[in-house]
Amino acid sequence: MDKVKLLCGRIVSRVNANLREFDFETEQFISNAIEYDKLSKFYCFYGITSHHPIDFYFKHASMAGSYFLGKCAVNQSIIYKSDIRGDELKRKGDIMDKDNPLPLVEDETIVINGSLLYKTLVHSNSHNIETPEEFTIRNTVSSHYANIHGSTIEGCFLGPFATIDLMNLHSCIVGEFSYVQAGEFFHKQIDPGVIHIETSDFSFQFKYKKKVIDKYIGVNASFQPRGLIYQFVMEKEPEYERLFKVVDLPPVKAPQSSAVNRYAVIKGDTKIGENVLIAQGAYLENAYMGDGSNAQENTYIIDSHLIGMNITAHGGKIINAQIGQKTFVGFNSFLLGKQTARLTIGKGSIVMPHTIIDIETPLQIPNDTIVWGYITSEADLKTHTIAIEELNSVDGELNSGEMIFSGKGKIFIDGFKRRIEQILLANGAYYDHDEDCRGHAQDDQQIAFNTLQPYRSGKNKGLYPFIRIRP
Amino acid sequence: MDKVKLLCGRIVSRVNANLREFDFETEQFISNAIEYDKLSKFYCFYGITSHHPIDFYFKHASMAGSYFLGKCAVNQSIIYKSDIRGDELKRKGDIMDKDNPLPLVEDETIVINGSLLYKTLVHSNSHNIETPEEFTIRNTVSSHYANIHGSTIEGCFLGPFATIDLMNLHSCIVGEFSYVQAGEFFHKQIDPGVIHIETSDFSFQFKYKKKVIDKYIGVNASFQPRGLIYQFVMEKEPEYERLFKVVDLPPVKAPQSSAVNRYAVIKGDTKIGENVLIAQGAYLENAYMGDGSNAQENTYIIDSHLIGMNITAHGGKIINAQIGQKTFVGFNSFLLGKQTARLTIGKGSIVMPHTIIDIETPLQIPNDTIVWGYITSEADLKTHTIAIEELNSVDGELNSGEMIFSGKGKIFIDGFKRRIEQILLANGAYYDHDEDCRGHAQDDQQIAFNTLQPYRSGKNKGLYPFIRIRP
Repeated sequence: MDKVKLLCGRIVSRVNANLREFDFETEQFISNAIEYDKLSKFYCFYGITSHHPIDFYFKHASMAGSYFLGKCAVNQSIIYKSDIRGDELKRKGDIMDKDNPLPLVEDETIVINGSLLYKTLVHSNSHNIETPEEFTIRNTVSSHYANIHGSTIEGCFLGPFATIDLMNLHSCIVGEFSYVQAGEFFHKQIDPGVIHIETSDFSFQFKYKKKVIDKYIGVNASFQPRGLIYQFVMEKEPEYERLFKVVDLPPVKAPQSSAVNRYAVIKGDTKIGENVLIAQGAYLENAYMGDGSNAQENTYIIDSHLIGMNITAHGGKIINAQIGQKTFVGFNSFLLGKQTARLTIGKGSIVMPHTIIDIETPLQIPNDTIVWGYITSEADLKTHTIAIEELNSVDGELNSGEMIFSGKGKIFIDGFKRRIEQILLANGAYYDHDEDCRGHAQDDQQIAFNTLQPYRSGKNKGLYPFIRIRP
Repeated sequence: MDKVKLLCGRIVSRVNANLREFDFETEQFISNAIEYDKLSKFYCFYGITSHHPIDFYFKHASMAGSYFLGKCAVNQSIIYKSDIRGDELKRKGDIMDKDNPLPLVEDETIVINGSLLYKTLVHSNSHNIETPEEFTIRNTVSSHYANIHGSTIEGCFLGPFATIDLMNLHSCIVGEFSYVQAGEFFHKQIDPGVIHIETSDFSFQFKYKKKVIDKYIGVNASFQPRGLIYQFVMEKEPEYERLFKVVDLPPVKAPQSSAVNRYAVIKGDTKIGENVLIAQGAYLENAYMGDGSNAQENTYIIDSHLIGMNITAHGGKIINAQIGQKTFVGFNSFLLGKQTARLTIGKGSIVMPHTIIDIETPLQIPNDTIVWGYITSEADLKTHTIAIEELNSVDGELNSGEMIFSGKGKIFIDGFKRRIEQILLANGAYYDHDEDCRGHAQDDQQIAFNTLQPYRSGKNKGLYPFIRIRP
């Protein structure tokens, strides 16, 4: 175990150096999060299909319980129970930057160097035009259920349930449950519970009250979460264990056009439609997944009905709800209906990332609505939703409760709608036996897994040997 | 699957070219043995410990259901349900040839190239002084339960249950159930059921009657076995399946000085003493394994009592028997006592490789006896056993039944005894918490397994990607 501890120390020292202006100390987070013994007991796996270019390069690192797909290189890092999903990596010849239409000279690779990712999701689709062939995560500590989505990042600390989306981050601290999508940030500290979306045409900003963050996420002094969302996730953890105990599972009933990952939990009376993607780590119980829907990593869909073409983004949780056609539920949202208080959201709506709905009486949200923030009853809808049509016509400033929108509403809406279509297309929701419309639902089937284990004894205990897997 | 078939064709063509003088056709063997569909469904595994140098290099090949330990390189080959055990590979600096005491310039590696091994055991400890750094198996087809033990080999066909031991073989055919240990053979065809041990000081020769081979091994025109030993093995196969279905098994009760491989079947009232090695693929049911004993790959020890310091070499089968202190049971022996007809073998005896004992009334073999050939009753002992003391004094020719010994008996006995001591030492039978006496029983514990899978679809279906694993 000596070398694993040395490695942790090295990561701490690098991240602290990057964050020294904030007087930030990552060591306590790590010493309270890492159970060294588990690092030597859990295996990780690398998925291989005939549809994704494979290349797995792994050196001086530990990767207990983690999942990899696509081209990945990991060096001097600890990756614990994290999903590194590279099925949207760009390929050689792709053109990334319309203003500078030079094709990529080689396939893009996820490169993780000197970092510690703890139960973090990494999903590709990067937007860094400086290094189109490399999706980099360097000198970064990322904690429980954070999402690194298409974002290159260096020298950062991400708090629990934080999301950074389609941007670049340099020497930043992102507070727990914050969502940031803002192009590029240098040396910034983002408070907990901040929702911040910004382009040159608009900005959307919301900040959770401290007591709400405390209730649902609630980190202690060393950034270990203890709130209701964390408890919810922890209670489900034993269900995943059986997936890791066996080599083959009986296949889940699903149409040929749909993919159900072998590391997803499928329980109760769950129905899976055509062109559906159920990613690794998804949890479905009495869930109806209409045609073209997807349940991404760390999503929980329980006692709920998704009519069709629904995106449940990484970490989204939907309980006792009815979700209309093509309604989007953003990252880490927690939509908690009850058996006696069902939540209904109409068609064409957008539930913004990191939305919390926790109701005691039934609640209905109309079609074509934008939803954000913290909603516990119908009274909250007034300050936490807006009709898409209404936002469409905004040009200037709009305040609603704690939400501040400024800029061109139409560009915000059009961009969101365009992104939803891109996600549906990428996930194979529009597949109709035409090879051009294949997506993850079709390509992420028939995954073979290389299951990799670390040294179990000696000074390298918990570390993995050098591993290279190529076509 | 296209590429797997192309690969099979290439192996067939190479082996046929090596064996063209014998007008031998390997294609029929392969087309009757390989179920292509299984090649894409089974996984293989590479064992990693802190005691063995690791290096796994794998390219353009398939290795369904196989086990690897130590440094192994596999290229353009198909390895199906085979054990490749490299825990006796020589290390950099070792001296192999006393007459030419130059140390090895690098660690020895098992190199398998252009070969098809089908349920074959490969165990290191090579004796080829021409290539001390490389244990080669090239352009070779080896069939059901053949043993390649410390033998480099090229351009050969090994029939079912054949063993080649500590020698080099070039463009040879070895008939089913033959055992050869004779230094080096070029362009030879060895009949079925031949036991041939030869050095410059002695030779030991025995040949089974055709009807005995037909009864116990019995291959058809394409070398697929169908006899009693094959049936015995096939009946036990389902017991292994549960080992492959789960990731972790509850540990088998055994002293800290002993190793029980996670891919061994342990059933019934089985007791494991100190310094015991139970290798992958061993099958123990109501077995008493006395201190310092070992059960090597593909051994079956059922309703039997091994008093201590017993070697059961690769493929040995012991049923309803009592085996005395330090008695050796050679490769692929089939010792079939019955509940009403127990077999007792005294201490210090040597059961030669490929011995068959199949009795209907109790049988007792005295201490310090050499045993060979086919024994069904006490009457057979006269022509199939000899006291060690008696053979010790032979200098010249000795005929006993179909066995012909010529040369110096003492050198034969001394060599065998020395080898038994080497095997016990290598297996850790003499371990007494002194690091110098560590052996496989101590070093083959705490194995971490990298579980590797082939492409499951597309033209590469059944083939593995390039894989490299290094420290």
